[in-house]
Amino acid sequence: MEPGSRDAAPGRVSVSAVLPAGGCGERLGGATPKQFCAVQGRPLVSYAVRAMERISWISDIIVVVSPENIETMKTIIEKYGHKRVTVVEGGITRHRSIFNGLKVFAENEFSSHLLQKPEVVIIHDAVRPFVEEDIISKVVMAAKEHGAAGAIRPLVSTVIASAADGCLDHSLERARYRASEMPQAFLFDIIYEAYQQCTDYDLDYGTECLHLALKYCKANAKLVEGTADLWKVTYKRDLYAAESIIKENLSQQVCVITNVKETLAQVGFLLPESLKSQIKVEAISISLSKNDSCLQNIVSGQCYNYVCVNEKKCALQEIRELVDMLEKSNIPLLCPVVLISVHLDISENDSFSIRMEDLSTIKKFAREAKKKNILVYGLLIQYK
Amino acid sequence: MEPGSRDAAPGRVSVSAVLPAGGCGERLGGATPKQFCAVQGRPLVSYAVRAMERISWISDIIVVVSPENIETMKTIIEKYGHKRVTVVEGGITRHRSIFNGLKVFAENEFSSHLLQKPEVVIIHDAVRPFVEEDIISKVVMAAKEHGAAGAIRPLVSTVIASAADGCLDHSLERARYRASEMPQAFLFDIIYEAYQQCTDYDLDYGTECLHLALKYCKANAKLVEGTADLWKVTYKRDLYAAESIIKENLSQQVCVITNVKETLAQVGFLLPESLKSQIKVEAISISLSKNDSCLQNIVSGQCYNYVCVNEKKCALQEIRELVDMLEKSNIPLLCPVVLISVHLDISENDSFSIRMEDLSTIKKFAREAKKKNILVYGLLIQYK
Repeated sequence: MEPGSRDAAPGRVSVSAVLPAGGCGERLGGATPKQFCAVQGRPLVSYAVRAMERISWISDIIVVVSPENIETMKTIIEKYGHKRVTVVEGGITRHRSIFNGLKVFAENEFSSHLLQKPEVVIIHDAVRPFVEEDIISKVVMAAKEHGAAGAIRPLVSTVIASAADGCLDHSLERARYRASEMPQAFLFDIIYEAYQQCTDYDLDYGTECLHLALKYCKANAKLVEGTADLWKVTYKRDLYAAESIIKENLSQQVCVITNVKETLAQVGFLLPESLKSQIKVEAISISLSKNDSCLQNIVSGQCYNYVCVNEKKCALQEIRELVDMLEKSNIPLLCPVVLISVHLDISENDSFSIRMEDLSTIKKFAREAKKKNILVYGLLIQYK
Repeated sequence: MEPGSRDAAPGRVSVSAVLPAGGCGERLGGATPKQFCAVQGRPLVSYAVRAMERISWISDIIVVVSPENIETMKTIIEKYGHKRVTVVEGGITRHRSIFNGLKVFAENEFSSHLLQKPEVVIIHDAVRPFVEEDIISKVVMAAKEHGAAGAIRPLVSTVIASAADGCLDHSLERARYRASEMPQAFLFDIIYEAYQQCTDYDLDYGTECLHLALKYCKANAKLVEGTADLWKVTYKRDLYAAESIIKENLSQQVCVITNVKETLAQVGFLLPESLKSQIKVEAISISLSKNDSCLQNIVSGQCYNYVCVNEKKCALQEIRELVDMLEKSNIPLLCPVVLISVHLDISENDSFSIRMEDLSTIKKFAREAKKKNILVYGLLIQYK
């Protein structure tokens, strides 16, 4: 997908997202709130923002943080080049923070500029970094139809009620119950109405948005079975798990960079398409230049694998610039970076030997790059 | 604690443990059932067995596995030198497997030899590798008093009930409910009676032992607040987390080996005691010899840090044997092993220079050992 283009949302509904990130992370046992803990050198909240940002049909992303973390959050947005993000000051509880996030779309005095009210609003936790477009789309569609919807998962442990004396009162039949997870989505008017009507007790002690929509707006939330990766980073062990998952994802992800013109557009399209079945592909069509912020974003997103498709006879200059950019990013310090330069050849004029010469130039350059932990490969494809 | 000695159980009650390990791990998404997945090269079930085995007042440990995994389990027991373990064939559900495990203490025909019936039986999952003696002891004491007891944890997600149409019926008030975790413990007669009385429906669809004790024996289980590390390895991310936790634990764990005689027993005692406040200490008192199974156990348990306290002038032979044992274990392939040879000197005869000579011999040997990724240090302590 072209960067900057905006796909139609599922069902042509306007959608924005609110990410409460105001928690203090007391269960993690550390001084840093978990949403700001670095995983592979990047704060958890940045992964969650990126997960939303990648979905072109989400218009605005509101991140709600506690007052003392507003500057931290703004720095993160700048550092990782996040777009479409508005930072809002949270309240003292989760519900109050979400309510503040929603107000940006409805109350003029709350923000420097009133954002356009979406038809459907997604609510997602800043500490659930692995949400995929598929489940978000399902939840949004269900919210459009039912007024409210939320992802659920089977219970891992049996849930029990305890009596006042600290003894078992009864255990719940596990099959009848589900864990309520995120993302959730609501018709904006419903959830905003629910927050306006609910009591201080709700705002201070409640946690479940679906419950508010049901109680105050009679919106029976549709429950959508989610995948295992929706889990919430709660304990220190979850940070370990997140780190391993991110590492695994990175190794199975490739960025295909192509600047080929119309004649070769088909090949440039076929390559990502055929790779897609094996690995996660982020395809961008740009001409390689040091100041391209789209590429900078991908590099700072810690992608380790690159395929550059080029129709020029020798793309060494471009490869050199990409290697420089990667070296400056410090990414190759963590892990070897693989960079495959594909020369798509459609001309019938050049002799084979000249093209081989180009490749040997790349080979020489590759030896230098290897010392920086960047593995450069050249590939010549004749396409007639 | 001396290996082989058996401490009195809390409250002088006889205690054994049943570990259901018959699950097929379908939620993990792999072919290997999760209890047999290797974490740092060692199957998960072996960590759970070791957690029980370390507690000297637990008499027998019954591991219940599905018929096709009996040989695998026996191989694990042999490989990691587990003691006091009996392998029992499980049933097709969790409850049936636990029931089979309990029968070993009660029915003559079920096992080759009838094990002595304990007063209290612990039930713990094979996929919860990090249980500590403290919580086990609390649960056992509570079971002795109340007939049944189990560890609980706060809920991470809100629990909701779904209606027949897949919509939200109601959400539970999170504060009133708890997740039922393991370990649990029961007066043997109560849980055995409950299993004998319960229906096939209970055996096939139930999961909660506390529920059976309450329903069939009116035993109101005491709920004991557990620590975060009691969690159950369920998904692939939990394996990642377990691996990171095990690595972290290993780096904070030291084995103190001492063969000093009575005169120096006090010092041999003081060293582990003072280390204890900083790190986890496993203190054993043995004379270093290749065939010591106690030391073999610790080595195969992947301890990375050793302190050998010796009163001999030059303990090089012992150190050499330990280095050989470590090298054969392949442990140093994963991570450097630290071995500190402490020479406790109480004699007033030897000149300081002679002792320094001993240390220089160790220094020379240390250079050789370093090539095997074993870092040997010598330390001379004069004690007068």
